[in-house]
Amino acid sequence: MPLTANNPNRQTWIDVPENSDFPIQNIPFGVFLTKNDIITIGTRIGDTAIDLGALHQLGYFKGIDLTDDIFLQDTLNDFIADGRKTWRLVRNRVSDIFLKGNHELQTNRAHASKVLFDIKDVEMQLPVDVGDYTDFYASKEHATNVGSLFRDPENALLPNWLHIPIGYHGRSSSIIPSGTPIRRPMGQMKPGEDGIPNFGPSKLLDFELEMAFITTDANHLGSRVEMAEAEDHIFGLVQFNDWSARDIQAWEYVPLGPFLGKSFASTISPWIVTLDALEPFRTEGPVQDPTPLPYLKQEGKMNFDIKLQAAIKPQNGEATVVCESNFKYMYWSMAQQLTHHTLNGCNVRSGDMMGSGTISGPTKDSYGSMLELTWRGQNPIKLSDGTERKFINDGDTVIMRAYCEKDGLRIGFGDCDGEVLPAK
Amino acid sequence: MPLTANNPNRQTWIDVPENSDFPIQNIPFGVFLTKNDIITIGTRIGDTAIDLGALHQLGYFKGIDLTDDIFLQDTLNDFIADGRKTWRLVRNRVSDIFLKGNHELQTNRAHASKVLFDIKDVEMQLPVDVGDYTDFYASKEHATNVGSLFRDPENALLPNWLHIPIGYHGRSSSIIPSGTPIRRPMGQMKPGEDGIPNFGPSKLLDFELEMAFITTDANHLGSRVEMAEAEDHIFGLVQFNDWSARDIQAWEYVPLGPFLGKSFASTISPWIVTLDALEPFRTEGPVQDPTPLPYLKQEGKMNFDIKLQAAIKPQNGEATVVCESNFKYMYWSMAQQLTHHTLNGCNVRSGDMMGSGTISGPTKDSYGSMLELTWRGQNPIKLSDGTERKFINDGDTVIMRAYCEKDGLRIGFGDCDGEVLPAK
Repeated sequence: MPLTANNPNRQTWIDVPENSDFPIQNIPFGVFLTKNDIITIGTRIGDTAIDLGALHQLGYFKGIDLTDDIFLQDTLNDFIADGRKTWRLVRNRVSDIFLKGNHELQTNRAHASKVLFDIKDVEMQLPVDVGDYTDFYASKEHATNVGSLFRDPENALLPNWLHIPIGYHGRSSSIIPSGTPIRRPMGQMKPGEDGIPNFGPSKLLDFELEMAFITTDANHLGSRVEMAEAEDHIFGLVQFNDWSARDIQAWEYVPLGPFLGKSFASTISPWIVTLDALEPFRTEGPVQDPTPLPYLKQEGKMNFDIKLQAAIKPQNGEATVVCESNFKYMYWSMAQQLTHHTLNGCNVRSGDMMGSGTISGPTKDSYGSMLELTWRGQNPIKLSDGTERKFINDGDTVIMRAYCEKDGLRIGFGDCDGEVLPAK
Repeated sequence: MPLTANNPNRQTWIDVPENSDFPIQNIPFGVFLTKNDIITIGTRIGDTAIDLGALHQLGYFKGIDLTDDIFLQDTLNDFIADGRKTWRLVRNRVSDIFLKGNHELQTNRAHASKVLFDIKDVEMQLPVDVGDYTDFYASKEHATNVGSLFRDPENALLPNWLHIPIGYHGRSSSIIPSGTPIRRPMGQMKPGEDGIPNFGPSKLLDFELEMAFITTDANHLGSRVEMAEAEDHIFGLVQFNDWSARDIQAWEYVPLGPFLGKSFASTISPWIVTLDALEPFRTEGPVQDPTPLPYLKQEGKMNFDIKLQAAIKPQNGEATVVCESNFKYMYWSMAQQLTHHTLNGCNVRSGDMMGSGTISGPTKDSYGSMLELTWRGQNPIKLSDGTERKFINDGDTVIMRAYCEKDGLRIGFGDCDGEVLPAK
């Protein structure tokens, strides 16, 4: 099926501000609450939120095989389970409805008033009920930096890292949409000289600049996903801040991995940008040496050129960008991650989320966490208000952005922000 | 509210076989499919499955504040969310309905035919939709054994272990009820001399003898559960086999913990035995030295005396018991696990599951995994059919049992079994 919605020449009758993340070529999917307290599945063009439930009730999706209530739900899980063919039909249809020159909805005021909302008047929700969330560790630069800081600079990259997309299970319950404040976590930290572990608010609160993909039902328990079909099971991506308390993490993580150092909050951007919308931004990934085992070998453009940014905004100050990275630096691709995840027969379901791990690039200003940027606090970062940061302070808002840009077309992810509240 | 259902003198008009796990003092909760393809929430006395949805429709729960469809669901999540007071009212009421001398249901054939089923005629389902599953590592003997085998016998117990209930996030999607076959997982294993990792079916497939508890909504994100109220948020327990592929696990687990070595299958017994039913079997846990930090300190009888057993049944042979342990050996109690889990503000929801980790006792025949029982295959176990096992073979069924017994009262968990199928 052609991705007509991707045509860069398409223009819409909706007003789209310059440099918007949401031109008519994006058409992301999300869930929002309207002023009338109705939860619905929707999309967005420019600063206009579009109620897909209302559009469907008004007959705009005729001919597409959808259940009547598919968009009148508080998660996208069922729609995602409908599969790629359906996502494409809906995305292309939405693109048609809002195409400049199509007056069907534009001139029908009664319909338009039911379907279109100012983005300021809706409240974004979590787009999916995340059944299981896995976080990978797929940037070689990040794994090397963390290995140097937490373990041994001489053997920073562990022997398994170049053979396996290393990952671990994360906590689903504490995934929150952009804008939800983050409470600084309490925890146990490494013992002082008296041998008694410290207890109190984390002193080393950090962000991790990541992306995450959302899957559809990929396989039954006991079967597995082949590399060639892996991307068919990826619905789309969100930006992802994997908040981390480095002092809690350092004390607890051996031998079973990160736990309370991560599970207090994970922020995502609430619009899922489809893999289809990102198709024009495919690019080569890093060279994989040694060659992965046959089940993990992938040919062609495995990665996506998505610019990533993290900024810190003090409570009464302006934001300062502290890191610029790119999703294309990821060593193990999303398809490789998903394929490896199911190798043992583990079943992946609609709405599951898989994080990339921190995406650090090759240069020091592309490191995706304060741990790496300040080298564990040794080199504090100066913000535009003159203050310095080793890690994140109470009152700081961490602002992440992700977008693709090529030939005048920009496809972005919108807000991925969280303000840190003091510990309680 | 009194736990009248716990009275050891109560007798029921239902026929209960000798040594049944399910006397009238148990009244566990589960979900089953009837012969008529109806899914309902139910309980069990002896070998009789009891349809709570039908009982409720027939008016037997009058006076208890329950929504009409609370038992007409395919999971217990909503019922569990109703809270402890409601669970107790329902459990006491069921106990009254089936008490010897109460003829209300017994003599009403029309009602009884709608409510009572032979256990052989129902198909047990997963009792809850597990939002998040956490596995702890709470047996000191197990942690010491694994530390000796995987790392350093001189420093087997890591420095954090005596201060924190160490745990990690597990995979929810692959939790399955007793009776579901397990497919031997494929995976990557440690490189041979050529430096290339091995790929193929796991050769070191193992069980882990565990218990797991199911929670209700315990706290909001950013707040935490205090020790004194922790048990109020525990609905009940199931037995739990945390299947493990030791060769996959050994190669992948550093530094982020177990992943594909565990996520291929986790078997639970499908009846949730309430914490209330286990109340008579409270007992002291191991002495905790050093004393836990104040937030983790718990007084009194923290543990439960639950006998645990694992047996291996070859395809055409009899079962041989290979391990006898006890839930009371667990160093960190359930209340401590739950309290620690929420210390950082991580929210725990109705239907979440927390595993104990392998419960190994002090003697060699009480070790809760083949890894420990055979000391990584050095001391194979002889089965009653004359064959030997270092780990689990294709065609073997691992049979786990858990029950409490005191003064002639036995409260048990029923079946927790899984047969291993060859890799595919």
